[in-house]
Amino acid sequence: MKPLALGLLASLFISAAHAEPTATGDLGLVIERATGTVVLVDQSDRAALARIDGLGDLSHASLVYSPDERFAYVFGRDGGLTKVDIVTRQIANRVVQAGNAIGGAISDDGTLVAVSNYEPGGVRIFDADTLEMVADIPTDSKTIGLVDAPGRKFVFTMWDTGETWIADMSGTEPQITRIENMGDRPYDALITANGRTYITGLFGEDGLTALDLWSDTPEPIRVLPNYGRGQEEMPVYKMPHLEGWALTGSEFVLPAVGHHEVLWVDATTLTETGRTKTHGQPVFAMARPDGRQVWVNFAHPLNDTIQVIDTVSKEIIHEFKPGPAVLHMEFTPRGHEVWLSVRDAGKVMIYDTQTFEKKGEIDADSPSGIFFTARAHRTGL
Amino acid sequence: MKPLALGLLASLFISAAHAEPTATGDLGLVIERATGTVVLVDQSDRAALARIDGLGDLSHASLVYSPDERFAYVFGRDGGLTKVDIVTRQIANRVVQAGNAIGGAISDDGTLVAVSNYEPGGVRIFDADTLEMVADIPTDSKTIGLVDAPGRKFVFTMWDTGETWIADMSGTEPQITRIENMGDRPYDALITANGRTYITGLFGEDGLTALDLWSDTPEPIRVLPNYGRGQEEMPVYKMPHLEGWALTGSEFVLPAVGHHEVLWVDATTLTETGRTKTHGQPVFAMARPDGRQVWVNFAHPLNDTIQVIDTVSKEIIHEFKPGPAVLHMEFTPRGHEVWLSVRDAGKVMIYDTQTFEKKGEIDADSPSGIFFTARAHRTGL
Repeated sequence: MKPLALGLLASLFISAAHAEPTATGDLGLVIERATGTVVLVDQSDRAALARIDGLGDLSHASLVYSPDERFAYVFGRDGGLTKVDIVTRQIANRVVQAGNAIGGAISDDGTLVAVSNYEPGGVRIFDADTLEMVADIPTDSKTIGLVDAPGRKFVFTMWDTGETWIADMSGTEPQITRIENMGDRPYDALITANGRTYITGLFGEDGLTALDLWSDTPEPIRVLPNYGRGQEEMPVYKMPHLEGWALTGSEFVLPAVGHHEVLWVDATTLTETGRTKTHGQPVFAMARPDGRQVWVNFAHPLNDTIQVIDTVSKEIIHEFKPGPAVLHMEFTPRGHEVWLSVRDAGKVMIYDTQTFEKKGEIDADSPSGIFFTARAHRTGL
Repeated sequence: MKPLALGLLASLFISAAHAEPTATGDLGLVIERATGTVVLVDQSDRAALARIDGLGDLSHASLVYSPDERFAYVFGRDGGLTKVDIVTRQIANRVVQAGNAIGGAISDDGTLVAVSNYEPGGVRIFDADTLEMVADIPTDSKTIGLVDAPGRKFVFTMWDTGETWIADMSGTEPQITRIENMGDRPYDALITANGRTYITGLFGEDGLTALDLWSDTPEPIRVLPNYGRGQEEMPVYKMPHLEGWALTGSEFVLPAVGHHEVLWVDATTLTETGRTKTHGQPVFAMARPDGRQVWVNFAHPLNDTIQVIDTVSKEIIHEFKPGPAVLHMEFTPRGHEVWLSVRDAGKVMIYDTQTFEKKGEIDADSPSGIFFTARAHRTGL
């Protein structure tokens, strides 16, 4: 009866493979910062699917996804680069590539993963498949604001020397373009969703510095000279995250530094167009994907509150207190719901963005960053 | 030995389920218009994975994806609505919901699929899970330009009566808002990626009509009064597809009607800002996702050619002939490659958008529309 048994086994194989199909378009990972773990979540079911552990120090972690939305590359504070397979729900590979790291990026073709390091300074670039290092770019500085750009490029900035470098990885060797005089102690940066404009925030002086990456020879452009702590040197509880900047049609929204307000900025001219008073010092000001609303969270001790701003009237249309220490927000890709990490409640909470009704919650241990797989398809996330 | 055998079987189940994991973020479907079939493709491997048949008349077919990037809803010309499971590679469900249909859309929460019908006119809305009809909206007209909008809404327009209707499906019954005087015989429409502006093209008169869907009472706004066939009534081989309109930063690019040119339009004011002469009558003018390039294909008999326009200089920077009858183009989500359907060559051809080098090709029988799963995460596609 061996042939029959084999036939039976073969059919079991097939039905087993089809019995647990895994489409990955509506999945995501939530960082559990205290325990070195991530929770795999399902947006549609508003549910946790699995916990994956062994990722090291995730106290300031972020991640990017492979183009097929199967693998997450998690960048830990301890220099760990962990490749998580969200289909098998296991760690696929892990290397500790530096002593102290801050963020990373994946190339537009999905073949290269870059990590930005504090100790030693510089950027290291890895094969996305094997995690073997393919390029080591020392910079003699802490590096910040690492992003991907179209054409297999990475862009990053030096805290110590105020330079921005563009690493073009389209050939066999990295081609580096160095741009000096970006400002005093750049602490973070963003790239616009179209990959054209790179903007650095400055810790050591007011104002911001922009680069037009479509220019053949990008030059630093000083913008918003009054953006920053200003003459009064207000106490700043937390420098705002620049990657949270929201583009709402023709305007950006920026969290002010040290002030209880957000700033509206014309996206073309990068000049200020208005301000909206807020509940506290904003940390993230994030646009719903359609740009009609901006959701704002705040620095300690006012971090139990969320305000929602209408981008046409620039007025606050909703305010509520999800719970203690709202650290991060992530919208579903088409914006009908938003997920909030409420760290000290040990919950991720889910809200309808039209009605503001609470739709569900998920237990998580000190949740911080929430990352949905749709990020795989976007530049600069 | 039964317990052992069962244990063995259980472990086979698990390894089988994990042996063929299917992440769906880089998959897509290619319509084979002559045979009622679709080809499942893998962007990363530049490969065909499977052919799925039995979808009826696909001569003018389009499709949308579920939020998890697992199911495609294929809208056939014959009124067929087919739900394809790209994980199991089978038809999951199929209904013939009308006699003659043209296009469809999926709600922002992924729960409703709407189909636009010529015969009988109107829109029918189905449960995305079961394909049971949940709303029938007769319109006494052929309906065109059906799109989804944020807030569980659908927007569509009447060829015969020149009205646009907004169907709000957020409650238990559809709430319909009717907007009259959109123009003479609207033949197609688009919604901008942020879901704010809906624009109809007119067959019966020159010009276009826009609606600001963020307004509480949207009113028709006539724009580009010289857009159309004009006084000379040029022969028009094919009315251009409006959904191909490209947004490149602050400008739209429109294929001219009946003329060998594309038009540049300010995205905020909807006024013309320039024209670029092209090889033939453009059909699609599609922006690479970063907006730096626009790729244009042309109407018969010049449909063997592609031109690429730089959006900064507005000049043609590349021209080539992929083969006979280039019908459709689809960019990878971050724009590093583009896939072209070359119908009469029986091929889908894949090009690098930076070097213009050909990277691969896939056999397909009279390929037309190419649809990558990343569309699941965008409004109005």
